[in-house]
Order: sequence, then C-alpha cells, then structure tokens
Amino acid sequence: MDKLNLTLLTDFYQLTMMQGYNNSNKNDQVAVFDLFYRSNPSNSSYAISAGLDQVIDYINNLNFSEEDLSYLKSLNVFTDDFLLYLKNFKFTGDIYAIPEGSVIFPREPLVRVKAPISQAQLIETAILNIINHQSLIATKASRVCWAAHDDGVLEFGLRRAQGPDAGVYGARAAMIGGCTGTSNVLTGKLFDVPVKGTHAHSWIMSFEDELTAFRTYAEYFSDACILLVDTYDTLKSGVPNAIKVFDELKEKGINSKLFGIRLDSGDLAYISKEARILLDAAGYPDAIISASSDLDEYLIRDLKIQDAKITLWGVGTNLITSADCPAFGGVYKLAAEEINNTIIPKIKISENVAKVTNPGIKKIYRIYNNHNKIKADLITLEHEIIDETKTLTIFDPENTWKRMTLKAGEYTCKELLAPIFIDGKCVYKSPSVMEIRQYCQEQLSTLWPESRRLTNPHVIPVDLSGELYDLKQSMIDSYMKPKKY
Amino acid sequence: MDKLNLTLLTDFYQLTMMQGYNNSNKNDQVAVFDLFYRSNPSNSSYAISAGLDQVIDYINNLNFSEEDLSYLKSLNVFTDDFLLYLKNFKFTGDIYAIPEGSVIFPREPLVRVKAPISQAQLIETAILNIINHQSLIATKASRVCWAAHDDGVLEFGLRRAQGPDAGVYGARAAMIGGCTGTSNVLTGKLFDVPVKGTHAHSWIMSFEDELTAFRTYAEYFSDACILLVDTYDTLKSGVPNAIKVFDELKEKGINSKLFGIRLDSGDLAYISKEARILLDAAGYPDAIISASSDLDEYLIRDLKIQDAKITLWGVGTNLITSADCPAFGGVYKLAAEEINNTIIPKIKISENVAKVTNPGIKKIYRIYNNHNKIKADLITLEHEIIDETKTLTIFDPENTWKRMTLKAGEYTCKELLAPIFIDGKCVYKSPSVMEIRQYCQEQLSTLWPESRRLTNPHVIPVDLSGELYDLKQSMIDSYMKPKKY
Repeated sequence: MDKLNLTLLTDFYQLTMMQGYNNSNKNDQVAVFDLFYRSNPSNSSYAISAGLDQVIDYINNLNFSEEDLSYLKSLNVFTDDFLLYLKNFKFTGDIYAIPEGSVIFPREPLVRVKAPISQAQLIETAILNIINHQSLIATKASRVCWAAHDDGVLEFGLRRAQGPDAGVYGARAAMIGGCTGTSNVLTGKLFDVPVKGTHAHSWIMSFEDELTAFRTYAEYFSDACILLVDTYDTLKSGVPNAIKVFDELKEKGINSKLFGIRLDSGDLAYISKEARILLDAAGYPDAIISASSDLDEYLIRDLKIQDAKITLWGVGTNLITSADCPAFGGVYKLAAEEINNTIIPKIKISENVAKVTNPGIKKIYRIYNNHNKIKADLITLEHEIIDETKTLTIFDPENTWKRMTLKAGEYTCKELLAPIFIDGKCVYKSPSVMEIRQYCQEQLSTLWPESRRLTNPHVIPVDLSGELYDLKQSMIDSYMKPKKY
Repeated sequence: MDKLNLTLLTDFYQLTMMQGYNNSNKNDQVAVFDLFYRSNPSNSSYAISAGLDQVIDYINNLNFSEEDLSYLKSLNVFTDDFLLYLKNFKFTGDIYAIPEGSVIFPREPLVRVKAPISQAQLIETAILNIINHQSLIATKASRVCWAAHDDGVLEFGLRRAQGPDAGVYGARAAMIGGCTGTSNVLTGKLFDVPVKGTHAHSWIMSFEDELTAFRTYAEYFSDACILLVDTYDTLKSGVPNAIKVFDELKEKGINSKLFGIRLDSGDLAYISKEARILLDAAGYPDAIISASSDLDEYLIRDLKIQDAKITLWGVGTNLITSADCPAFGGVYKLAAEEINNTIIPKIKISENVAKVTNPGIKKIYRIYNNHNKIKADLITLEHEIIDETKTLTIFDPENTWKRMTLKAGEYTCKELLAPIFIDGKCVYKSPSVMEIRQYCQEQLSTLWPESRRLTNPHVIPVDLSGELYDLKQSMIDSYMKPKKY
C-alpha cells in the first residue's frame, strides 16, 4: 500500500520564495521557525497534540520525483538551476516537537524547525496541515470523552469527514484523544486500534421483519451482539424483539461477551431510561445501551445530567469535523536566523498584542505541584535551566504584576520539546497509537478538573522567563523607535 | 505516484452485514440505494455536486489485497468463507449520478446505486465521504465567488484543511465551485488547475529591509509581482516601497503582466481605499490590490458594500473547512430491492416527516422556463417521461394545494442522472476540472439571482410526480395500519 507522494503538498509561494532564496544564494542561511497556536478550539482551556508520526513520515519521504519536476517546469516560472536544486533536495535540519498525546497550551512551540531557510519554508504548509488537523480532532475527542465520564466513546464519523484522510487520520486522532474504538476499518488496519460496529437500518429492512433480522444477526455474531432497535418502534418493537433474541441465545446456552441495543433516534434520555427498565425486567441488567445521533460533548453532558442510561456513545459528524470549531489555528513563524554561526532572534510585531511573536530559540518547562497537577508552563530561551532546588518566581507576560512563587520542594518541572530529527536524521520512534492514547490519559490527569470544564474552564498560565521577556521587550522597543523601513 | 488502497475505507458494520448477507445467501439480492441530502449547507438555497471523479477512481480500484484480508482475519470475526468471497470481490452493479458541477437540491438522488446488496453496502461509506466533502466545499466556493462578483478568488486554505486530502480535494472542489486558482501545488499537478502565490512575511523578514526584499522578489518574478505590503506598516512603508519597485521595473523597461500588492491584516476596506489612492497617484491604476485575512462570503460582501478596492481575494480557512457548516449531510438509503426480477420499492418511515424516504427507482427532471432559469425539479419513477408538448402540473408534496401549471412551449426539461457504471463497467469519462468549473458557471446561471442571495434565498421547489407521490402515500398508509412488527 504505497502512499501518495506529498512533496508537492505545499503552497506555491513556498516554491517561489525558495527559488528567490536560491537566486540570492540564501538557500543555506539557517532559520528557526516555531509552530504554535494562539487560542484553544471549542472553548477548551487546553489542546492535545497529535499528528507528529505523520509529520515524520512526510519528512522522511520528501523527494521531488521526475513527474513533480516536469510539472513544475511546465509552469514556466522555475529556472533549470532551481529545478536541479529540487531534484537533489532533502531535509537536513533539526526538528524538536512536543510528543503526541500531550496536553498543550497556546503560544508554546509545538514544533521547532531549524534548517536552511528553503527547507524550512517548503515543509511549513504540510506540517501545519497535519498538526492542525490531528490536534483539532484529538482535542475534540478528549472533550467528548470527558463528558461521557468512564463510558466508551466510539468514533463513527467517516462518512461525514472532509475526505478520506480526514476520516482515517481523524479517527487516529480521536483514538489518541480517548475514544475506545472507531468504525473506520482502514484506521483499524493502519494503526492497530479497535474497530467497532454491528449493523445499520438497511440490515433490518432487508429482512421480512425485525425479529428475523435480529435473530439472523445474533446467529452469526453472538459474541458482540448490539442490536439496532429504532427501525420501526423502539420501545414497542425493537427492545421487545431484542429481548426475545437474548432469551433465545440464553436458551441455546450462548453467553455473549457483549450484548445490548443501539438507539439512533428519538429522545435519548427518555428512551434509554424506558429501555433500561424493559431490559432489567427481562433479566438483562448487563445488556449495554449504546446510542448515536448527532452527539457532541454538550449533548452527552446534558443526557448524563438527565440520567440517561447510555454507557456507550457513538459520535460522528460533530467529532470528526470538530463541528463547532473546524480549524485549529496553528501558525509557523520565523523565530531566529543563524548568520555566521550567530543566532539572531527575530520577532514579528503586530498592533494586535497577542500576535507579537516570541523571539529566539526557545524551549518549554512544565511546572507541576506535588500532586502532579500543572501549575504553569514556562517558555524560556534554549540555554536556560530551571534549578528545582531553588525558589522559582514566574509572572504573567501581559500583566507582569501577576506573580507566582514556588519554593523548592513544592514543585517539579519537565521539559516538553523532544528531539525528532537531528541533521535530517529521524532520532525518534513514535509509540503505537494505543500507547499514545494511554500517555494522553496520563497527561489529562495532570490537568485540574477546573480546567476540563466544557465552558469557561480555568486557564493555566503560560509565562515567559525573565530573560525571554527582556529580550522580547528590547526588540519591541527597538522596533518602535522612529525609523525608515 | 500510487494511491492508498481505499477498499477498507468503510465502516466496520458494512463488513459484518456483508458476512451476514453471505451467510444468509443474500449476497446476490439486488438492492437500490439513493445518496441524497436533506438540507443545504451555509443557508444556501442550492448545493453544487462534486467528487464523482474520485468515486469512479474508488470503484475502479476496489480490491481486497492480501494484506487487507490478513488484517480482517486477525480480527477473529470473519469466516474463511467470507474472506474468500472478499478476495474475489469486485463491483458489478450500476451507478447513475448527477454530473459534477451541477446545481443540486435537497432530497434528489445525487447517486443511485443498483447492485447486489453486499456490494452496495461496502461502498456506502466511501461514496458518502467523497461526495459529502467535495460537494460541501464546491458549494461554499460558489458562495464566496458570488460575493466577490467578477473578481478572482484564490483558494489559500491548505494549512488549515482537515488533513492532506481535505487540502487536495478541497482545492479541487473549490475550483469547481468557481475559484480562479489555488495555492495548493499538488492540486495543481493532479488536476491541471492554476496555482498561485508569491511570498510570505518570512520572505520580507529574511532581508535587511522591506525595500530590498521587494526589489529582490521583483527581480526574479517580474511577470507576476504581487508584493505583500503589511509586514511593517502598510501605508507608510509597504505601499510606498512597492511603488518604488514598480518605478524601477518601469525604468528598466519591464512590463509586468501582473503586478500589485497583497494586504493580509488591518481593516481591508480602509486600507485598500488608501492604497488605491497611493497607487493611482503614482501612475499605477492597473496595479492589483489583493487581500487575504479570515475572509468568507459575508465579509467579502460587506467589504464590497463599503467600496473596498480589492479585486483579488485569497480565501483560506473558512472556505477549505466550510467553517460555518463543516459537514454536508448526505445519506444513503435503501429505495428498492429486486426479488425474482421484480422491483420492490422500500421506504424508511420516520416521525420526522422530512426524514421519510422516497421509495422506488427514481430519476429527476429539471424544469426550465424559456429564459433557461430553473422553475422546479421533479422527482419521478424511472419509467415516467415528461412530454414537453403537453401542459405540466406539479405540486408541493408536503402542501399539495401548492400547484404550478406550465403550458407547452413555456417550459423545457432535462434529466439529471447520467449513467456512470453499467454492470460494473465505467461508461463515463469525467471532464477536466476546468471543464467542470465552466459547466458549473453555466449551471449557476440557471439559478434566479434571488436564489443566490447569501441569506434567506428563494427556495426552488423539488416536487414528486403524481405517481411517485401516490406510491409513497400508499406505502406510508400500509405502514401506519396496526400490525405486529
């Protein structure tokens, strides 16, 4: 199963700029770019990083084929000299990134690329595309799963995803964010995650009656026998017929590992409670009640509040598209250049204060209290080291009077960025998706419950070190002096 | 460039149902499914069909590889008998569809599949995924282009698309819907559509000053020299420096085919008007003013109302994700079965009237007035023929007293569904994307301007023929009789 060559998955202006750098003999000028985002999706106080494994694949497979080059030549924009440069193109830089499944916050470099500027530009678009998409869906999934408490959440959205990849990698990201399975068979195959599902209304309709359809299904799939009960009348027909079939299985001495019903329409609070009564009365307190039907985290929360008797949730469109916020606003900004082996920090000024970038090569420390909950994240310059044996004082970079002092012994800290590529060689082995999912669960447990609330959650501070703050201020000051541009 | 095998791009329940049909010797029972949608995205009165060419590719390449089969075997759910059936699987059915780029309305079968039921089930998920995605983006693009009047609209959203395919096929769909180009190089290569773009802020920042950056860019790309003028100060620095560079090109006797500026921040109405004054005063009334920055159809409309001097629009996130409505709600419902060579119409009843399906094998006539504007669409049974030499009376299927009578000579009509696969063989050759785009422009011209308004547009009736209406009513009546299920 070969993959589409994604080398041309880039914006045209990256190639025109690359040719410009090539013409200006700037190809080898080293630049440092940060990939970060400015605000969390869907009212969340955090996001979940995802997509790094596909970024690694993409970088490892960068290669302009003859077909790519002849296409580019046909545009009559590129010189032979530049096309020859592309023919020999490979990525030779360093990439650091926050591992997949991590809890992340705005303004933190999620991916830091240090490479000759042409290389760093070429990969901007694809890296953003991949990280933006998967982080968006992983974040959404973590919210849906939070709303569902300890229940299972199945990703059911493939038919409404924005194209095949959105389905396949969206389901991957949904698993990372906490889903317990997906209906997407290709994702199951590619990433070794549980695939789930039983039958559709069309199965029921293709038999002469509902009971025959259920009985036939149970005959072939007694091990995982979840019957869809809402084709005709859920409480008068579907649930009673399901109970008949469960009785027949029992009579035959078949003990299903997993059996129950699925609701796909109607008022899920009311119907699930009534169905629970019927199933319990028939002697099936273990029968699962699962539900699907335009679910999202808000509806699941409200159904839970109303004591709906659903313990397995199938979530489709709203999860796979992150419907209330369908884009993760990751950006990729120049942070430094290296000229004659000297690092020159770069800053992008904007009238919008939140859009002023953080200059220099940076790293991130996460600061925990002694109960392993996150107190704050601190962005520092690369050479800075936090000494945990000393008192640490941090401050809000926009309102510097807001300070937090942590005494030695009251906090621990951990660096977030890990080396992924060094000198163009991949030095990182991605864990399996189920391992990343487990890691994400641990990460989510480091958030205070107050930060997981679906609306208006507590925001965790992301501060700048004193040194980084001073660098940024001095660069802003020097830009603000009267000058010719 | 090989493509990912998408045969497993399906919901798990399709495979369990297929095994169930296989076990029940129902594999060869022929079923007819309709793919249709229930409401238009983004307040539109219409949608644009797109994605058929990728559906054709998908069907032509259906094939369970050894790797697929051993994955399925590893799940311990499928029998050897069924896996052998899959090994020999190929699509042998008929598919009719509305060609890409067509104006479409709710409840019309966009794709009609007649095939042995297992085949028809397997392909449900992928067909929905592909058609839902591309129709969504093509529709959104048609709205954005309408708001921009005759200006060019460039698709700039790859970095925010929901994964690589969402970028690549989303840009394809955006071109069908009316965009004049895309930044996505891979889409340009795959579908031979214009790719566009010049440079980013990072280009400017990598030079010692803005003027040098502009001058260098103009030196290498004088043919299409659109300079990004908002890195430092648009009106005090960017535009004056751009004018200097245009002056220098003129002095050198270079006549750019395309030159001008791009705005990417600030108030685009105010800044574009001021920039226009500066450019005109410098003798460059032909200099283009292009803009990007969180645009969508509503903002473009409002900027036009305020007389913004922008004539080229780069639209990113909101177009490539259809941000205000990120899913197209296409569904795939059983409409008929063939048993012993007899067609048995099928209906799905729902308490929600809009969700009751239309039974039987159907086709669609589009009815035009003599000015080639759409009066209505009429869904009929397959054997029905409209005789244009006779008076035609149609009626609203929900409010049957709403009638429209069209006399001979006052209307023409055209069937919408075209044969795509017959007996598993593709009988359709897709036009090129630029041809589909042209066809879409013609299709859009058949809409009344009142139906293109962005909010609360005039809705075009989609009626049922008398015969189809009677069939549907009689099936509803027989379902509503007291019965055991």
